[in-house]
Amino acid sequence: MSGNIQIAVVGSGKNDEQIESLAREVGRILAERGCVVISGGRDGAMRGASQGAKEAGGTVVGILPGSHKRDANQFVDIIILTGMGHARNAVVVGSADGVIALPGGPGTLSEVALALKMGKPVVGLSAWADIEGVKHAHSSDEAVRLILEEVR
Amino acid sequence: MSGNIQIAVVGSGKNDEQIESLAREVGRILAERGCVVISGGRDGAMRGASQGAKEAGGTVVGILPGSHKRDANQFVDIIILTGMGHARNAVVVGSADGVIALPGGPGTLSEVALALKMGKPVVGLSAWADIEGVKHAHSSDEAVRLILEEVR
Amino acid sequence: MSGNIQIAVVGSGKNDEQIESLAREVGRILAERGCVVISGGRDGAMRGASQGAKEAGGTVVGILPGSHKRDANQFVDIIILTGMGHARNAVVVGSADGVIALPGGPGTLSEVALALKMGKPVVGLSAWADIEGVKHAHSSDEAVRLILEEVR
Amino acid sequence: MSGNIQIAVVGSGKNDEQIESLAREVGRILAERGCVVISGGRDGAMRGASQGAKEAGGTVVGILPGSHKRDANQFVDIIILTGMGHARNAVVVGSADGVIALPGGPGTLSEVALALKMGKPVVGLSAWADIEGVKHAHSSDEAVRLILEEVR
Repeated sequence: MSGNIQIAVVGSGKNDEQIESLAREVGRILAERGCVVISGGRDGAMRGASQGAKEAGGTVVGILPGSHKRDANQFVDIIILTGMGHARNAVVVGSADGVIALPGGPGTLSEVALALKMGKPVVGLSAWADIEGVKHAHSSDEAVRLILEEVR
Repeated sequence: MSGNIQIAVVGSGKNDEQIESLAREVGRILAERGCVVISGGRDGAMRGASQGAKEAGGTVVGILPGSHKRDANQFVDIIILTGMGHARNAVVVGSADGVIALPGGPGTLSEVALALKMGKPVVGLSAWADIEGVKHAHSSDEAVRLILEEVR
Repeated sequence: MSGNIQIAVVGSGKNDEQIESLAREVGRILAERGCVVISGGRDGAMRGASQGAKEAGGTVVGILPGSHKRDANQFVDIIILTGMGHARNAVVVGSADGVIALPGGPGTLSEVALALKMGKPVVGLSAWADIEGVKHAHSSDEAVRLILEEVR
Repeated sequence: MSGNIQIAVVGSGKNDEQIESLAREVGRILAERGCVVISGGRDGAMRGASQGAKEAGGTVVGILPGSHKRDANQFVDIIILTGMGHARNAVVVGSADGVIALPGGPGTLSEVALALKMGKPVVGLSAWADIEGVKHAHSSDEAVRLILEEVR
């Protein structure tokens, strides 16, 4: 594995406090383990993961669908403006060594599916247990442990 | 609805005779109804849908992941070379007024999910019944009837 | 060369009557020679090329930056909605066997440059003569003749 | 301007010692000024800019056309794997607040043109002086000074 380990955290973009809080834990633990945290750079789980990683001193990458920096949440360090709309989901997971997927809607599901198609390891945290090929975790700690086992 | 009705047929790219044959029926019926048939332009369900539409005198569009025309199956009339890899899945469903999804793996699942995310109608033909938002059909005729009800 | 010959016509998207009229001639001649005419599907040279090809009974493909069919000009038969913004320029020229470039601004220049980078033949019609690798034509007839010599 | 200032350095991907050395100077000065340095992440000017920024303690982002981390040069910290081929050029300049363009071929020209189309400031360093809208610099120092005047 050359360079930093880059882990994508995907999940609902809605402002669901529980999911955002879970994502923040995941982001924090990933940063403590030295991983670069990648997300879609916007709200909900993306903001949670960014905030957690930022607070732990990590490097936070947001890969956005649009072309305006102001659309990124305030915790993102590196803003990638794809301007590609939903196709950016392929760049989010394509840039990751592994993916931790929180609960979410069809956008999140597309990221899980694209990651599996690309042969990347995917850990579902309290979610996506029914999708073949996704490993299941019941806590943030377990999710990070499982994904790091896969990518190392 | 301006212009032609454009329907994407998605499904396994593997050489599964049953799925390809089902896709061929779907392609044929869509062409008979005057629809442009869009697919990923390669093998399996993509080739079946292309062949069925072609044999019925329809217009067949293949939206490919790569950059070589020779990768398209022989029934495709219009070859779109995205060169975008898996991100082309977003172009396949993004270009469609509605999507008919046959059985498949994670690539197909990503197309179903992206279509739902974009707010497009999706009909699962003997597949994807467990994905929220997908309408279910048990035959090619029913699949085409259901998708045309949605897009008209 | 498998399948149809697909030629992209690129040029200013502004409503410049002279360029649009020139593009219309190019589109017409390409369609008369049996080529599929590809463009960005919008205004100016794109509309001219689409109109000319349509009036000559050709197949007209528009590859759009956005995700709404209504943004295509009325002469486009096959509407590809990339949703990718300016990155769609790579799909326009990537899908073409050759490119005819009319006068235009930086968007057109990006298409000329991307086509050259991809190794595609490019003919400049009253334009782009100073870009290395572009062949120069002084009339629509000559532009079509030159590009067909290259792609056949 | 929210977040870090992100500057893209574009130029020939060939192993031209003079261009790579010039790019290294540009990367170094940008990093010293606190900018994130973005490039296509590969060889030639991309490697030079990455190396210079890295040696000065800066943050180095490489936005690659492919899907393998090993294709990035060794100075890149954050590897974005677009898998989009030449369309990634739109992501390189789309993610930048401004672009410094060194000598190069059609790939570089496409980045200059796309940046201008997006309305981004572009400084040509010993290059691209004939492209309308490009500001001209005669040294690395001047290039960085000019681009920072534009983006601040």
